[in-house]
Amino acid sequence: MQPSDIVVKPRAIMPEGAATLPAEYYVSAEYFAREMDRLFSRMWICAGRTEQVARPGQFFLRQVLGESIVITRNPSGRVTAFYNVCRHRGTRLCTELEGTFAGSIQCPYHAWTYDLDGRLIGAPHMDEVPHFRKADYPLHAVHADVWDGHIFINFTQHPEPLLDQLGPLPEKFKPWRMEDLRLGHRVVYDVRANWKLIVQNYNECLHCPNLHPSLNKLSHYLSGENEPLQGTFMGGRMDLRPGVDTLSMDGSCPRAFLPGLPSDDVRRVYYYAIFPNMLLSLHPDYMLVHTLWPQAPDRTINICEWHFHHDELARPGFTAADAVEFWDMTNRQDWHVCELSQAGIASRAYTPGPYSNREDLLYAFDRMIVGLHRR
Amino acid sequence: MQPSDIVVKPRAIMPEGAATLPAEYYVSAEYFAREMDRLFSRMWICAGRTEQVARPGQFFLRQVLGESIVITRNPSGRVTAFYNVCRHRGTRLCTELEGTFAGSIQCPYHAWTYDLDGRLIGAPHMDEVPHFRKADYPLHAVHADVWDGHIFINFTQHPEPLLDQLGPLPEKFKPWRMEDLRLGHRVVYDVRANWKLIVQNYNECLHCPNLHPSLNKLSHYLSGENEPLQGTFMGGRMDLRPGVDTLSMDGSCPRAFLPGLPSDDVRRVYYYAIFPNMLLSLHPDYMLVHTLWPQAPDRTINICEWHFHHDELARPGFTAADAVEFWDMTNRQDWHVCELSQAGIASRAYTPGPYSNREDLLYAFDRMIVGLHRR
Amino acid sequence: MQPSDIVVKPRAIMPEGAATLPAEYYVSAEYFAREMDRLFSRMWICAGRTEQVARPGQFFLRQVLGESIVITRNPSGRVTAFYNVCRHRGTRLCTELEGTFAGSIQCPYHAWTYDLDGRLIGAPHMDEVPHFRKADYPLHAVHADVWDGHIFINFTQHPEPLLDQLGPLPEKFKPWRMEDLRLGHRVVYDVRANWKLIVQNYNECLHCPNLHPSLNKLSHYLSGENEPLQGTFMGGRMDLRPGVDTLSMDGSCPRAFLPGLPSDDVRRVYYYAIFPNMLLSLHPDYMLVHTLWPQAPDRTINICEWHFHHDELARPGFTAADAVEFWDMTNRQDWHVCELSQAGIASRAYTPGPYSNREDLLYAFDRMIVGLHRR
Repeated sequence: MQPSDIVVKPRAIMPEGAATLPAEYYVSAEYFAREMDRLFSRMWICAGRTEQVARPGQFFLRQVLGESIVITRNPSGRVTAFYNVCRHRGTRLCTELEGTFAGSIQCPYHAWTYDLDGRLIGAPHMDEVPHFRKADYPLHAVHADVWDGHIFINFTQHPEPLLDQLGPLPEKFKPWRMEDLRLGHRVVYDVRANWKLIVQNYNECLHCPNLHPSLNKLSHYLSGENEPLQGTFMGGRMDLRPGVDTLSMDGSCPRAFLPGLPSDDVRRVYYYAIFPNMLLSLHPDYMLVHTLWPQAPDRTINICEWHFHHDELARPGFTAADAVEFWDMTNRQDWHVCELSQAGIASRAYTPGPYSNREDLLYAFDRMIVGLHRR
Repeated sequence: MQPSDIVVKPRAIMPEGAATLPAEYYVSAEYFAREMDRLFSRMWICAGRTEQVARPGQFFLRQVLGESIVITRNPSGRVTAFYNVCRHRGTRLCTELEGTFAGSIQCPYHAWTYDLDGRLIGAPHMDEVPHFRKADYPLHAVHADVWDGHIFINFTQHPEPLLDQLGPLPEKFKPWRMEDLRLGHRVVYDVRANWKLIVQNYNECLHCPNLHPSLNKLSHYLSGENEPLQGTFMGGRMDLRPGVDTLSMDGSCPRAFLPGLPSDDVRRVYYYAIFPNMLLSLHPDYMLVHTLWPQAPDRTINICEWHFHHDELARPGFTAADAVEFWDMTNRQDWHVCELSQAGIASRAYTPGPYSNREDLLYAFDRMIVGLHRR
Repeated sequence: MQPSDIVVKPRAIMPEGAATLPAEYYVSAEYFAREMDRLFSRMWICAGRTEQVARPGQFFLRQVLGESIVITRNPSGRVTAFYNVCRHRGTRLCTELEGTFAGSIQCPYHAWTYDLDGRLIGAPHMDEVPHFRKADYPLHAVHADVWDGHIFINFTQHPEPLLDQLGPLPEKFKPWRMEDLRLGHRVVYDVRANWKLIVQNYNECLHCPNLHPSLNKLSHYLSGENEPLQGTFMGGRMDLRPGVDTLSMDGSCPRAFLPGLPSDDVRRVYYYAIFPNMLLSLHPDYMLVHTLWPQAPDRTINICEWHFHHDELARPGFTAADAVEFWDMTNRQDWHVCELSQAGIASRAYTPGPYSNREDLLYAFDRMIVGLHRR
């Protein structure tokens, strides 16, 4: 491979003095609560995939904002979401992380029973109570909607439409036909770092030559182009080096490329942070999705999934191992430095440090976060 | 078994709008501290059994209110209790959970030594200190008293008599001759739930058909009668179904009934919550005692003991297995839903839910608790 | 051994009413923070031994005041210390507890690189940033100095000289030639007690007959003499009983005495608490050093090291087992009672208790601590 193979795109020059955020943004419980309140409690957050609730009654749980949320599908096919809290005495309705309800949701304590739209349909002995009406006690609902196979939920009373939040992305990523992709592998990481450090880590490749020599062999860290932050997302693309077919251990691709993908996009990997909690990485032959679930200022659960085209998954001899191994290795390198940053930022010696021009997306992200706290 | 076998007693109609307590009663550190201060620090609390200190110098420890308390018996036969804190430099005097003092209590650090009445009787080199008098440094005492084999302790300076707190109970439960019963088995449960959720769970059987099918086969959940809350206790009784002799895995009773028990009581199980921490369950042939030891708003240690008549325990081939297995299974079902309730009540979605008429004791208990916090 | 063998030295009579400190000194987060701020953040603290950084680039880490500190040696031979925090994005530079830098210190994230004096010498892509100067981003330094083989660090900007803090000690302990000693064994203890309880435990032997019968057989607890507290240290000496050669399991000494030691000192063990965190115990043939690393009001990491003369260590058949086994046993007895004291002092029943005349150093230490908090 020759240096001349690499097209190095210039980056915006950063404003003078552009520096990382002060420590409180990463360590303070107050800042964390404000971000949970102003971002995670207000925006649509990516919760999973429609294939997890393929049939009515199928469900899975998500822990977010200190809440347990049940996501399921009603008999008419609509994805629904509820707080996992019985209206009688507050008992958690289910504890299995995923499963299938037998037509209704029954509380294990006193058998109050709800249909898949959350309506109370059974409450033993409550008919003896004057003026009690089942209609007054539905499950507390959470809004749910779907984009191209991805389920999003929203905690506000009257959310703006999901499509408004996503802006140009549905059009942009249509060629990948994400709805046709199916889960090949999932790894759940427990990262001892602030969720923003993970977003920042995801949005620059300045660290790639040092931290990810394998990745850098497949895609030069100066290749590609960034798309500036636009309200609810930011991202860009990396170019695969000549001879490399996808991001895998050896750069070869044992699968067909996604059907219908434009030829340019077969040579690229797109990485988009879709606020607040989705990291979407589109490869020529698979989709990698991280969803971030902040637990504390210094702790984030990261659910990472590899999705493949259903035809490929159905093929005899299908394997995800090359892509899983590559990204699991790369993920672990990333979470490790995120944890090192979290630890160092908590030091009394930490002071904001200068950004290079290769960290322009981070600077833009930081500005958005600062604005959020000032609001 | 025919439905006609079951005598369903009507229950008091609850006031309109009777609902569970707001979340802060179960999750707030402030509410917890107030309950520890106004109930557990002021009332007599059940600490164990006289057989645990059968001989002078025998002792056991209890953890309550963040304190370690030594309970022992002095040479003249009186049960005594002390803070487990040396008067010299504050060192814990003993760490074994139970054992026997060799006539006196010696601090492991500098060998300060106390008699079984807590008087300081040895303090090396302190005679060199002018004006030092051993009489000034007895162990800090806690009041102790006994009811029918049960030891109670009290943290106040001048407690009301134990019998005043117990009211009519000693007379009521005389026929069971609890003093003659001896420990057959003990299980200590660590329950991630507020202590009040355990009391509430204990005082209604509305949950029995759903949660405890085995129990419901032995005693119909609508049988029996409640005794309304009276200041320091509340409870009631359940009737055994025809053909059932006691609460055990198969309903049979491999032991003699307790001697002298009236024939009516041989067909019943009595369950009384004796505030603040004793749950007393009297069966025809054995006594089940839970003592509750709140550790945090969301955590309670529950010591559960099965006691049998000493003649039965001494009989060759005696077994407690049927009763232990039955209640250990039932206990675990109960603590699990208590933990599910604790988790759900902490949700932002939790709001007080309506009580049925079968939950009248809970409503009365809640009113007492509310009054306690308002005082 | 006859009582007449023991020379019992009288101790200063304590002021009337001399008593232990109130509980808040041991359990309060506020008091702990003040001690970290006024003692540990201002005084020189003992951090390790020069042999741990024998060659330039060798390093070890210390955790103190919630900080991770890198201690290393620069090419010109000076011991240096730095906060373990990269100036770019705050990342921890190294996580290995000890090791050797290959000439420079490189951040694992974006490869910012520092020389062993902490100067930034490499920062990829930062040359594209206008006005960026490497000279502005050295590692944050911590002062480091050496006394007779012991490394001390200091967190203040302009510390007084280490020798001023040590006062007469360097002269006093010259005969032991501590610089010539080398590590034979290290044990790290995690003690659930306030750091002051460990200092206090170290400075009286009133507890020895009861807690350490083996130690008391080697050195009578009333032997020796105390040296009153002088600003930054306090200590004293114990006399070995006749026939005892050193503190070891059987009192025999399988090693040569330290070369050049005066004959009087061959019959003694010196124990000095050198504030705030060093406990120095000099035996005829070895040096025992504890360094204390407070983690919380009720938790202290204690690094205990046995050092021997390098000639002895080099001798075939050298063993440290007798000294290690003796002190490890004695240490564990001590930390156990310190933990018992910590637990008891947290009780609502704890009140300051009277000191005997054998606890005069503790009373003096307490006065210094009280003054510190009042300042």
